[in-house]
Amino acid sequence: MFYTHTCGELNIKNAGQKVTLCGWVQRSRDLGGMTFIDLRDRYGIAQLVFNMEADKALCEKARSLGREYVISASGIVMERSNKNKNLPTGEIEIQVEKLEVLNPSKTPPFTIEDHSDGGDDLRLKYRYLDLRRTINKNNLIMRHQVARAVREYLDGQKFIDIETPFLIKSTPEGARDFVVPSRMNPGQFYALPQSPQTFKQLLMVAGFDRYYQLVRCFRDEDLRADRQPEFTQIDCEMAFVEQEDVLQMFEGMVKHVFRKVKNTELPVFPVMKYEDAMRLYGCDKPDLRFGMPIIELNDIIKGKSFKVFDDAEMIGGICVSGASEYTRKQLDDLTDFVKRPQVGAAGMVYIRHLPDGSFKSSVDKFYNAADLEKICTHTGAAEGSLLLILAGNKNKTRSALSALRLEMGARLGLRKKEDYKPLWITDFPLLEYNEEDKRYYAMHHPFTSPRPEDIPLLQENRDLSKIKASAYDLVINGTEIGGGSIRIHNRRLQESMFRAIGLSKEEAEQKFAFILNAFEYGAPPHGGIAFGFDRFCSMMIANEDYIREFIAFPKNNAGRDMMLDAPSEITAEQLRELSLETKREK
Amino acid sequence: MFYTHTCGELNIKNAGQKVTLCGWVQRSRDLGGMTFIDLRDRYGIAQLVFNMEADKALCEKARSLGREYVISASGIVMERSNKNKNLPTGEIEIQVEKLEVLNPSKTPPFTIEDHSDGGDDLRLKYRYLDLRRTINKNNLIMRHQVARAVREYLDGQKFIDIETPFLIKSTPEGARDFVVPSRMNPGQFYALPQSPQTFKQLLMVAGFDRYYQLVRCFRDEDLRADRQPEFTQIDCEMAFVEQEDVLQMFEGMVKHVFRKVKNTELPVFPVMKYEDAMRLYGCDKPDLRFGMPIIELNDIIKGKSFKVFDDAEMIGGICVSGASEYTRKQLDDLTDFVKRPQVGAAGMVYIRHLPDGSFKSSVDKFYNAADLEKICTHTGAAEGSLLLILAGNKNKTRSALSALRLEMGARLGLRKKEDYKPLWITDFPLLEYNEEDKRYYAMHHPFTSPRPEDIPLLQENRDLSKIKASAYDLVINGTEIGGGSIRIHNRRLQESMFRAIGLSKEEAEQKFAFILNAFEYGAPPHGGIAFGFDRFCSMMIANEDYIREFIAFPKNNAGRDMMLDAPSEITAEQLRELSLETKREK
Repeated sequence: MFYTHTCGELNIKNAGQKVTLCGWVQRSRDLGGMTFIDLRDRYGIAQLVFNMEADKALCEKARSLGREYVISASGIVMERSNKNKNLPTGEIEIQVEKLEVLNPSKTPPFTIEDHSDGGDDLRLKYRYLDLRRTINKNNLIMRHQVARAVREYLDGQKFIDIETPFLIKSTPEGARDFVVPSRMNPGQFYALPQSPQTFKQLLMVAGFDRYYQLVRCFRDEDLRADRQPEFTQIDCEMAFVEQEDVLQMFEGMVKHVFRKVKNTELPVFPVMKYEDAMRLYGCDKPDLRFGMPIIELNDIIKGKSFKVFDDAEMIGGICVSGASEYTRKQLDDLTDFVKRPQVGAAGMVYIRHLPDGSFKSSVDKFYNAADLEKICTHTGAAEGSLLLILAGNKNKTRSALSALRLEMGARLGLRKKEDYKPLWITDFPLLEYNEEDKRYYAMHHPFTSPRPEDIPLLQENRDLSKIKASAYDLVINGTEIGGGSIRIHNRRLQESMFRAIGLSKEEAEQKFAFILNAFEYGAPPHGGIAFGFDRFCSMMIANEDYIREFIAFPKNNAGRDMMLDAPSEITAEQLRELSLETKREK
Repeated sequence: MFYTHTCGELNIKNAGQKVTLCGWVQRSRDLGGMTFIDLRDRYGIAQLVFNMEADKALCEKARSLGREYVISASGIVMERSNKNKNLPTGEIEIQVEKLEVLNPSKTPPFTIEDHSDGGDDLRLKYRYLDLRRTINKNNLIMRHQVARAVREYLDGQKFIDIETPFLIKSTPEGARDFVVPSRMNPGQFYALPQSPQTFKQLLMVAGFDRYYQLVRCFRDEDLRADRQPEFTQIDCEMAFVEQEDVLQMFEGMVKHVFRKVKNTELPVFPVMKYEDAMRLYGCDKPDLRFGMPIIELNDIIKGKSFKVFDDAEMIGGICVSGASEYTRKQLDDLTDFVKRPQVGAAGMVYIRHLPDGSFKSSVDKFYNAADLEKICTHTGAAEGSLLLILAGNKNKTRSALSALRLEMGARLGLRKKEDYKPLWITDFPLLEYNEEDKRYYAMHHPFTSPRPEDIPLLQENRDLSKIKASAYDLVINGTEIGGGSIRIHNRRLQESMFRAIGLSKEEAEQKFAFILNAFEYGAPPHGGIAFGFDRFCSMMIANEDYIREFIAFPKNNAGRDMMLDAPSEITAEQLRELSLETKREK
C-alpha cells in the first residue's frame, strides 16, 4: 500500500504517530512562513502543514502543487492550535517530512466543489472528475448501501440471486427492444431484455420458489428528460403466493432498507385501490405526505346557471386550510399554473371562506352566500380555508386537480424532505384501450393475472375494460418505486390474454412458445415485483426523482455517452462481418 | 402463502402437526390399500400417504396424479413405521386429508432425475425442467452462495459495488465486440462491454479507491466447446497499491469464499514466475495437486547418435513414480495420446527403471545401461519409476509434456477432486509477437503496466519481447480463475503502449481519448483483477471446468438459446427504424 492511513480516519488519538497519506490536493493556502494543503481521498480531508523555516525546499515543493495533483505525504500527526470542529479530522494536522507527486493534474475544466460551475454536458464528458464531488461520491456510496441492504433482506428470506441472460429474443410488446446482430447467423438478431420477466417466471416453473436479481434492463424509447436507455431493476419473484404475501414481503424489504440506510422507521403501508386513488387524488401515485383530497362537487354545484359547471362532466375541488387570505396575485398565479399545457385546465374557480365567517369567490355572480356556505360545509372548508375548483372532462379534471394539489402541497411546504409516506396501489385495470390503435394493451404487461373473480371475463373475452388485475404498485411520496402482479400460470388463460391484446395465435406462438409450453409442465402459482433501482435510490437518498445523479456513468437526455462519445460509427470490416448495411442517407 | 411448511423442513418433532405442503410429484407408488407420493420442492422431499380404507375418493385422486403435477396437500405429520435414514424428512410422512391439483403436467420429455436421459439440446430447450434436477438446482444455489461470500468479503474490505454501463463504445482490440445499432443515430452503434476495464480505471481516477462488481461481459468470439458469448466477471480495482497488495487482498477473498461455501481452509498461495511455470510445467496454469515437473534433458541425452534427440531444440521428460511396470499396451496408449493433434508430439521415448535396479527403454539401441542410469540419476527416477521423454521444438515440446503430465496425473488418480492447490503466476511477458499479423499484441490487455524496471524499454520502444508485465493470474488445479495487473496511469506511457501494439496516434485518440485525457487529471497509481465468475463457480463447486452447468440459461456451443430460439429474425419495421439492411444472400 502507498499509505498507512486514509485522509478521513485520523484524529487526536493519532497525535505523535508517523503516517503516510495519499490523495488529491483539494486546496492550498500560503500564510507567511506556512503552507497548508487540504488532502482529499474517498474517506475525508486531512490538513497537511509545511513550514518554510523547518524545510524551505519541501515547503516550496508544496507551494508548487496545483489543484487535483495526486500526492503522497509522510509526516507526524500533530494537534492543531486552530481546531475545526466541523471536520472529523479537524483537531489534527500532519507536519509533513516527505512529499511525493504521484501524478500531476491539469487544471480541471470545472471546480470540484459541492456547487460546481460546470454545465451538464461538460460534467458528463469529464464524469470521472464530476464523481470526485462529495455529493456525487456519496450518492454512489449510498447506492451501494441500498443494494447491500436489499440483498441482506432477500438473502435472509431465502431468495436466491440468479442471473438471467442478456442476449435473448426480440419480443417487443409496448416499448422497443435494442437488438444485437448475430455474426454467426446472418440476418438474425439477439435482443437485450426490457426486463427478465419471462425468465423469472421460468425459474418459478423450475422450482426456485424465491428469486431475485439486481439486473440491468434496456428500453429503446424516445428519450425524455431523465430517462436512461439502460436502467437497473430489483427483480423478484415468488411461487405459491397470493397478492397479500407479496405485499407483506416487500413492505418488509423497503422498511429494512430505510432502517439500515437511513435509520428511519417507516409506518405501515396503507393499501389503496386504483379507483380510490384516482377519485381522491386524481392519479395512481398520490403523495400522501399531506391531505387535500379531491372532493367531487357535481351534485352540489350544478344548476346555478354557471355554464362552465353545468356543462362539465366533472367538477372537483381541493380545500386548502389556512389559505383564505391568498392575494389576488397568488390566485392569478395559480390560475396561470392550471392553464399550463402540462396541467391543461381551462380555468380555476376559488371560494375563500374568510376567518370572519364570510365568503368570497370568483363566481359570486352565480352563487350567493348561502350557496357558498353550502359548498363549504359539503367540502369541510372551515373558516380560513381556500377552495380551489376545476371542471371539465373527468380524466383531465382529475389529472389537473392532482397537479394543482401537488403544487399547493409544495407551496405550503407540506412535501417535507425527510418525511416518507409509502402506500400500495392495487386493483388496477388489466387492460387499457388505445383509441388510436383501436386495440387493448396490457396496463402492466401481458403476464399479469386478472383478479380471480374476473378470470371468466377474460376467458370469455368480454367486458375487457372492467377486468381488474392482481397487480400492485408501491408508491412513495408521489413516485412509483416498484410494481408487480400475480402472474398467469395456465396456458389457456395466457392465450386468452394474448388474444385480448390482439396477438394472433401464430404471433403468440412465434414470440412466446417457450413460456406457453412451460405452463404445461407443472407451473406453480406465482407472483412478483420489480423496483426501479435507480429511482428507488433517488427517492431514498435524496427524496427526489432525478435518477441520473445516482448512476455512475449516465447518458445524456439524447441517449449519448458524452465521455466515450458513443454511439459511434463502427468499421466497414465490422459491418461486413455482421452482414449489415446502414442506410444513413435516407 | 399456499403452504405452512416446505417439503424439506419437517421431521419427527413436527409429528402430530397439521401442515400444508406444496410441490411437484416426484414419484408415486401404490401398495395395496396405500398410495405414497414423494412431493418435491426446492428444499427437499416429503412423503405423502393416502389410505384407500380411510378415504377412497382421496386415494383415487392421488392415484390419478402424474409426474411433475403441482399439488397442494394438507394433513397430519405422522411418524413413519418404515424410516428412511438417508432423507432428512425420512422419519415422517404426511397423512393427507386434503389434496388440490394446482396445475397438471404433461409427461416431461426427459426424466427429472440426477442422471437424466435427455440429450444436451433437448435439456437446453426445456431448461426450466432440467433445472428441476437436484444437481442443477444445487449448482445455482451454490453459485448464489459464492456470490454472497464474495460480496461479504469485499464489502468488509471497503470495496464499493458500482455499476458501469452496458451500452458503450466499440473499441475492439483482440476479441470482437457485439454491437447495438442506435435508432436515434442512424449508422451509429453502441457496443456491449468485453469487460468494464476502462470504467473501473476511471473510477480510480474519480477517487473510489476500492471498486468491485459482479458484471456481465460479452465477446463475439468464434465459439468452441463451453464458451459462452456472455459471461460474468468478478471485477475489482484498487488505487494506491502495488502488485503484492493486490495478491494479498484477493488471496484473502478466495480463501474466504472456500471457507464459507466449502468449509475448506486453503493453504498459502505460492507465487511462481511465468518463466518458471513454463519451464517446470510447460504451461502458465499448472495443476499443482501433484509433482511430476518437466526435467530438461538436452545436456545429458544428446550426442548418442539418436537423431531425433540430437536434432531437437528441446528434450524434456517427466518422471512417473511407481509406473515402471507399465505394460506395452499402456505405453502404446500413451504414445497414441501424445501423437493426437491436440497434443502434437511426433512420438514418445520411455525409460523404465525397474524395481530390480535394471533399465529398459524404447531407445536401447542408442543408450546402454550406463547411459540410462545416468539419465535416471539426473532426473531422480528411482527404482520403480517410468521416465517419459518428448523432444522437438521448445514451445511445442513443453506444451506436449504439459498435456502428458496432466494425463498421467489423471491416470494415477493424483488430481483429487477435493484437493485444491491455488497459485499465483506472475511476471508475464507484456507483449506477444504474432508472426501472422507481424505485430505485437498485449498479452493481457493494453492497460497493463510493465514491471517498473522495464518501463524504459517500453518508453524507448526497444526489446519489446523482453518486457515483463506487472501482471498476475490466479490458477487453481490447472484452471485460470482470474487475472489482473497493475495498470498504466500515465498518459505518455499509455501512448507508448499503444504505439508498441501498432495503434497509430489517431486510432489511439479516436478509440481511447477519454482515458488518455483522464490520466492528465490526477490519475492515482492503481491495479486490479477480474475473476471469471462462471469458471470460479465451476471450479469451486465441482472442481471441474464446465461452466455451462453453472449458468441458469446458457447458450449451446453454437451461441444459440435453444429455449427461446434466439437469435432470430426481427421484423422489417424494426430494421427500417434502425436504418439497417441485412445482406443474407451473400
